Amino acid sequence: MGKKKLWGGRFSNTPSKVAEEIATSLHYDMRLYKHDIRGSLAHAKMLCKQKIISQKDLDDIQKGLAIIEQEIENGTFPFNEAFEDIHMNIEARLTELIGDAGKRLHTARSRNDQVITDVRLYLKDEMHEIKKLLIQLIVTIVQKAEETKYVVMPGYTHLQIAQPVRMAHHLLAYAWAMLRDVQRLDFAYGQTDELPLGSGALAGVNYTTDRQFLADELHCGAIAHNSMDAVSNRDFIADFLYFSSIMGMHCSRLAEDIILWSTAEFNFITLSDSVTTGSSIMPQKRNPDVAELVRGKTGRLYGNLLTLLTLLKGLPMTYNRDLQEDKEPLFDAIDTVKLIISGMNEVIATMHVNEEVTRKAIYKNFSTATDIADYLVMKGTPFRQAHEIVGSMVKYCEHHNEDFFTLPLEALKKFSEQFDNDIYDYINPEKSTERKQSYGSTSLKSVEHQIMVIREKLHEYGC
Amino acid sequence: MGKKKLWGGRFSNTPSKVAEEIATSLHYDMRLYKHDIRGSLAHAKMLCKQKIISQKDLDDIQKGLAIIEQEIENGTFPFNEAFEDIHMNIEARLTELIGDAGKRLHTARSRNDQVITDVRLYLKDEMHEIKKLLIQLIVTIVQKAEETKYVVMPGYTHLQIAQPVRMAHHLLAYAWAMLRDVQRLDFAYGQTDELPLGSGALAGVNYTTDRQFLADELHCGAIAHNSMDAVSNRDFIADFLYFSSIMGMHCSRLAEDIILWSTAEFNFITLSDSVTTGSSIMPQKRNPDVAELVRGKTGRLYGNLLTLLTLLKGLPMTYNRDLQEDKEPLFDAIDTVKLIISGMNEVIATMHVNEEVTRKAIYKNFSTATDIADYLVMKGTPFRQAHEIVGSMVKYCEHHNEDFFTLPLEALKKFSEQFDNDIYDYINPEKSTERKQSYGSTSLKSVEHQIMVIREKLHEYGC
Amino acid sequence: MGKKKLWGGRFSNTPSKVAEEIATSLHYDMRLYKHDIRGSLAHAKMLCKQKIISQKDLDDIQKGLAIIEQEIENGTFPFNEAFEDIHMNIEARLTELIGDAGKRLHTARSRNDQVITDVRLYLKDEMHEIKKLLIQLIVTIVQKAEETKYVVMPGYTHLQIAQPVRMAHHLLAYAWAMLRDVQRLDFAYGQTDELPLGSGALAGVNYTTDRQFLADELHCGAIAHNSMDAVSNRDFIADFLYFSSIMGMHCSRLAEDIILWSTAEFNFITLSDSVTTGSSIMPQKRNPDVAELVRGKTGRLYGNLLTLLTLLKGLPMTYNRDLQEDKEPLFDAIDTVKLIISGMNEVIATMHVNEEVTRKAIYKNFSTATDIADYLVMKGTPFRQAHEIVGSMVKYCEHHNEDFFTLPLEALKKFSEQFDNDIYDYINPEKSTERKQSYGSTSLKSVEHQIMVIREKLHEYGC
Amino acid sequence: MGKKKLWGGRFSNTPSKVAEEIATSLHYDMRLYKHDIRGSLAHAKMLCKQKIISQKDLDDIQKGLAIIEQEIENGTFPFNEAFEDIHMNIEARLTELIGDAGKRLHTARSRNDQVITDVRLYLKDEMHEIKKLLIQLIVTIVQKAEETKYVVMPGYTHLQIAQPVRMAHHLLAYAWAMLRDVQRLDFAYGQTDELPLGSGALAGVNYTTDRQFLADELHCGAIAHNSMDAVSNRDFIADFLYFSSIMGMHCSRLAEDIILWSTAEFNFITLSDSVTTGSSIMPQKRNPDVAELVRGKTGRLYGNLLTLLTLLKGLPMTYNRDLQEDKEPLFDAIDTVKLIISGMNEVIATMHVNEEVTRKAIYKNFSTATDIADYLVMKGTPFRQAHEIVGSMVKYCEHHNEDFFTLPLEALKKFSEQFDNDIYDYINPEKSTERKQSYGSTSLKSVEHQIMVIREKLHEYGC
Repeated sequence: MGKKKLWGGRFSNTPSKVAEEIATSLHYDMRLYKHDIRGSLAHAKMLCKQKIISQKDLDDIQKGLAIIEQEIENGTFPFNEAFEDIHMNIEARLTELIGDAGKRLHTARSRNDQVITDVRLYLKDEMHEIKKLLIQLIVTIVQKAEETKYVVMPGYTHLQIAQPVRMAHHLLAYAWAMLRDVQRLDFAYGQTDELPLGSGALAGVNYTTDRQFLADELHCGAIAHNSMDAVSNRDFIADFLYFSSIMGMHCSRLAEDIILWSTAEFNFITLSDSVTTGSSIMPQKRNPDVAELVRGKTGRLYGNLLTLLTLLKGLPMTYNRDLQEDKEPLFDAIDTVKLIISGMNEVIATMHVNEEVTRKAIYKNFSTATDIADYLVMKGTPFRQAHEIVGSMVKYCEHHNEDFFTLPLEALKKFSEQFDNDIYDYINPEKSTERKQSYGSTSLKSVEHQIMVIREKLHEYGC
Repeated sequence: MGKKKLWGGRFSNTPSKVAEEIATSLHYDMRLYKHDIRGSLAHAKMLCKQKIISQKDLDDIQKGLAIIEQEIENGTFPFNEAFEDIHMNIEARLTELIGDAGKRLHTARSRNDQVITDVRLYLKDEMHEIKKLLIQLIVTIVQKAEETKYVVMPGYTHLQIAQPVRMAHHLLAYAWAMLRDVQRLDFAYGQTDELPLGSGALAGVNYTTDRQFLADELHCGAIAHNSMDAVSNRDFIADFLYFSSIMGMHCSRLAEDIILWSTAEFNFITLSDSVTTGSSIMPQKRNPDVAELVRGKTGRLYGNLLTLLTLLKGLPMTYNRDLQEDKEPLFDAIDTVKLIISGMNEVIATMHVNEEVTRKAIYKNFSTATDIADYLVMKGTPFRQAHEIVGSMVKYCEHHNEDFFTLPLEALKKFSEQFDNDIYDYINPEKSTERKQSYGSTSLKSVEHQIMVIREKLHEYGC
Repeated sequence: MGKKKLWGGRFSNTPSKVAEEIATSLHYDMRLYKHDIRGSLAHAKMLCKQKIISQKDLDDIQKGLAIIEQEIENGTFPFNEAFEDIHMNIEARLTELIGDAGKRLHTARSRNDQVITDVRLYLKDEMHEIKKLLIQLIVTIVQKAEETKYVVMPGYTHLQIAQPVRMAHHLLAYAWAMLRDVQRLDFAYGQTDELPLGSGALAGVNYTTDRQFLADELHCGAIAHNSMDAVSNRDFIADFLYFSSIMGMHCSRLAEDIILWSTAEFNFITLSDSVTTGSSIMPQKRNPDVAELVRGKTGRLYGNLLTLLTLLKGLPMTYNRDLQEDKEPLFDAIDTVKLIISGMNEVIATMHVNEEVTRKAIYKNFSTATDIADYLVMKGTPFRQAHEIVGSMVKYCEHHNEDFFTLPLEALKKFSEQFDNDIYDYINPEKSTERKQSYGSTSLKSVEHQIMVIREKLHEYGC
Repeated sequence: MGKKKLWGGRFSNTPSKVAEEIATSLHYDMRLYKHDIRGSLAHAKMLCKQKIISQKDLDDIQKGLAIIEQEIENGTFPFNEAFEDIHMNIEARLTELIGDAGKRLHTARSRNDQVITDVRLYLKDEMHEIKKLLIQLIVTIVQKAEETKYVVMPGYTHLQIAQPVRMAHHLLAYAWAMLRDVQRLDFAYGQTDELPLGSGALAGVNYTTDRQFLADELHCGAIAHNSMDAVSNRDFIADFLYFSSIMGMHCSRLAEDIILWSTAEFNFITLSDSVTTGSSIMPQKRNPDVAELVRGKTGRLYGNLLTLLTLLKGLPMTYNRDLQEDKEPLFDAIDTVKLIISGMNEVIATMHVNEEVTRKAIYKNFSTATDIADYLVMKGTPFRQAHEIVGSMVKYCEHHNEDFFTLPLEALKKFSEQFDNDIYDYINPEKSTERKQSYGSTSLKSVEHQIMVIREKLHEYGC
């Protein structure tokens, strides 16, 4: 500490210890080093091309930055907390290594445009990675759907048995949700893929720069059109944090289903040892920890989004130091999203379905009551009246400890004259899914169609 | 209360008073009536086309729903809290009016797919409205930018005077941010424009329906592919609430600037009487209430987003009654977004700029210090060294109560031999904006280019 | 609209329509009318006592306010949106009714201290009500615990069957949590019970007032010591919103348990018709709607807290119009908290426990595995080793489709020589709860002790 | 990785890599090592006292844990990621060091009660530290108030100049707010000071333990009464996170004031070099970074609260692995709170007040308009009428570019006949603060009284 700052010309004293502590970001922005170097290389090339620095300067800068990158990766880089962040550390080291050329690198650039450029470049790389993982998760779900397309199980509303469905149909509901998350990620990517570099501190710079050259060098699809907006805009981070929140929410719902299914009471699936852990005290326990942690981690994803939204609220233009606090929630969200997707993927890929249990379960709770109402509609009863009739039948069965299956035709006829022998086919829960003829239903045909459509979409994403 | 429910066949008792109170949604979902009727009309037409109901039934339903729509708009509709929501109120009234045909309307439909269809149709209409208002706000900002393109003022970072900028440039930063918000709104619209109707309760329906016909009737761009996802998916509401949060955040920042600018201390603008109010006790006060309320309302926009995210977290498939709580935050966000956009529009459109004050202000705080550093760079000093030199000059001026303008050349030369008479031109803050040559800078040329580009974009949106 | 404002002396124009719309609070602050009148009466009495207004003025004010209170309750009060809020409506009407005395009421008072006084008085009344409801809920839970103290059921960790517990013990866990919520409510009450009235706009007033007299009249336990803090402080609202969030979170967890227990799969309880509803399409459904809505409403309670926290973030001293946005989240939280407590109370009070089901369930998932480990410890095996041994037994049983109960002694002895005939007593899940000897355990003695201690606490609260 | 787990008896396979990664907490719960050891020592002593383990076992455990504590502090402890957390690492190492006695330590204990005991002990220690820092900040504010009690400055509402106040009064508003925060911290402490140890996994333990002995050893004020609540209760963490959010909010408001005051436009204070930093590009900048970071860090404090609230929402009883996610937000909040308090303390302690600037500023914006209205009230005009008159005077002055001070008596009399020569005394803003006679006002007497009362309170806290 106490080192002279690179911006310290007009200051008589250095920051106090607590100011250093509160202001330093080196311990977390260190992970931007590669993208900071990449950004500086592009900047230096542009400065040289525009004759703002000499070819010799550029050569020196290139050499120096190559050494620095190696030093960091070797673990030999002399990090110095006094230089606050990774950017100043690299610049200071560069000047140490190559002299005056290092002092020229920051020409026509401010930390305001430099740092946010680094963040964008870094985030874009991470988004590519995350997209791959997310698509892999969808592939895994679809694969599991393929495997479970003949598995019938209760479908629930209000967590009460509602109607029989195919497990594949239930799982595919999440595949569709996650395909929407891919769209959210793509949107966030589009927002991230814009170059702020060249905006200077806030007003632009006093040099004839070539920002298109920079954008090309750094593979950015667009250039920020307004320098004040450029250094102040953190929307793209919010877009990513929002994607991660919705994505996390979807995973929390899938995790909830998995946790329920793996209880002794539901017992629809058995989780693999690879995603469960035991208890320090209860020797029999096999806990669905990975699913629980996925569900719990939703909290921090929401928390990260809120952290950013709160700090942005009511900030005046343009750059305010508050904005430094954008990085930790972003980095945490990136790490968390990768973990929960991978964790969920492992859970789904390795789960064993207890098909005989799910098949037995559809015989509970009058799961075909709606079918019977539709049977009566077919015979001419208005639906609302048919619903009322079947409701009375359910009440009767419960009071007499019966089920639809056990009622003889004469008993049925007391509820409606329209019942006939063909009703017993309607009562059978195993045939219920195939009576669903509407587009998007749980019938085998529909499930197979969904799998085909999703696979086509995945194909477009290169899978 | 205590009325027999439409779903009450199997129940021995009606819900208790507190259950009715907690479950009823009529007081807020009433605003969906038009879209509920629109949805029912399409559904009935489809049922008739598919021969599930007769032409006579359809005629009756159409007549009945027309009467109901009129009754609601006349204020003569007999609302009944016992029927919980607007949907059941309309269905019950329909049966009252037209008999059995009314009881057939709900064939091949569940409240699960019906309600969320209504919400989507309603939201799409509101989004059109909001988009118009938002684009109007951008038009107003651009118009104000056009008016202020010759107004120079201090640009700030850390709320400290940084470099001179054009007020137009500062205002345009918000126009760019809001153009991104239009993209967020468009994204949310795309997510909303999908038809769940026909998914039934969760599994699809036992009828040969034609969902493409429904989509065409209701002008929906897509059909939900999975019935379980369809009744459970609230992502599109989250997408809208997220849009409204980011949009609100942008407005809160613009509001903050406006509030600052209209203080006695900044005094850059004078707000119109039409957007200020007085004090009940202090007769002199003219308070920027509209801007403050815009800033404050960001809170409820964030709150609405969080409300939805919280309730979705960890919910099992498919429909759970928790989801009923999606509507109030959505409706509040719609109303709030419309208010803050309109409020902000009025504030900007009517504000008076105190040009002489802003021009004087750029002479403060050594606003051209960076220009001087760049002057030295031009003369050959490496930037980091030039920065250090100018830093010392600032320190010297402060200690001696001088400004750059008042230092004679010999005094300047003590800092660097490279200073020459041409430095006085560099010192002049009024010329600083025009030295900014980079793309996206605050120069007049750049500001005019931005206005042109934005106007082209607005043109694409039909403005 | 367009009416001259009471603060309008220095204005040339009235607010625009959108400004009126965004600024008006009458539609929600109307509910403060009683407390506004109560505050004004106290203020007028104090002004008279301090000779700031005459006895005649006081008489007129008292008469006028009595009329107004009656008008509001009769529905004959001429509300006028142009007067923005309930406070200005009452003052304007008062002057209409009694002339000059009405114009004197606002002497030595500002809306800044008036409004927040009203909110505090109102909230204190509501807190009394909420405390009563909350204590009633605890009473109901304890009563249900009394009824279920002999009901054994599986205790869960990770939603996996862990060890047998008494249902009473499980329910009492929530009673303890809610007793803590009473403490949170009491804390919030203490923060609310402070009088801001007399602080003026921000600096105090130019009159020799008697704030202790006001505090006594309005039954406030303390007086705000700093006038700037007094008009700016919204902490007490946050304290209440935080209480409501934690309270809501507890209810969401209890609701989750209730929802799980009432599934066909767990089937531990049957909910009353009075707290369940049916489906519009599926005639058999009995959905736990009240519990689901309680769980879902947690979202809005969190949302309300965040709304307030967001709007307060970064606000400069003292009153800013943003603060007007404090009321809607507060009012919504009050209404919601009352609903969820009452709803939960009804659910618990009317639920039927399926004792034979819970008793059978404890035989699943080796629920006494820990007991067996402790058996081995008792015989001298170190705990960690005993845990390992029982773990192997569980694995063996699963592979051979056995249970502890079915293994003969010789099979047990293969795992440890220490097993003897007394092990069969340890294996019995019905005896497990009584082996728990530690304070706070699930043994009958401990459960009865808990009930006694809680009843003593409730007794202190006057129950 | 891949090491056999301490709970692994019944498992055939070890967790997968991603499961390990998602489940491991060692990298952050390492900071609990001291409190884990402290808890284990107390537990072992109790086991020995209750004859559950031998004196020899206790001696070994004590020796072993002493070695482990030293190893951790020396950096020689062989941390092993495969043992997931600090607790299992310590237990495994203990057995390595002392053999069988190590395997006995976990008798009558579960990780469920062990971990949350450690967290409570750790948090209590941190709360002591935070309370000291917070009280130091209040001391600093009061000291600065003492120094600025003669400094008059504009008081603001809506950020518009409202009435003159003493800077001391403004600063003391924050001292009062922070005294309330001390109460919030004390409340959270009370909630934390309860011992869960001895609750076992969820049901209590099969041993005659002495939890009162444990509470005494570990200096806990209370014992958890219900074992299921004990392992599931995270309320005390929420209470701390809520304290930190409100505390952070107060700091964000003070920071906002500081940032405003140190602008070139307000210029009420000059911040010390020790809490400001420069710009990498603009050599003249002195930015209030510490204040900005304090303001920005409010975001993460809100985010941490929300993270916990989200993860708790809807969790069933009792321990679920989601709860592991409670630690990172807690630890981050502890670190952040300490930083922002220390940062704020440094900012306030070192700021220089530009008294001549604040004194000049009170002459702006008709800051004594209310005084004039009160003057007219004193002469018999009803307040509302007086307010109207002064409003017209302000309008007149603005139109004619005058101020109250420049209007001759005859001009004044045109507004009210009651104006006389004594009005000029009322107009003087420097005398305004002393006319405030109400309790809690900005008068010197009131300010001195506040300082005295606060110092008495601080004295009670041992300052």
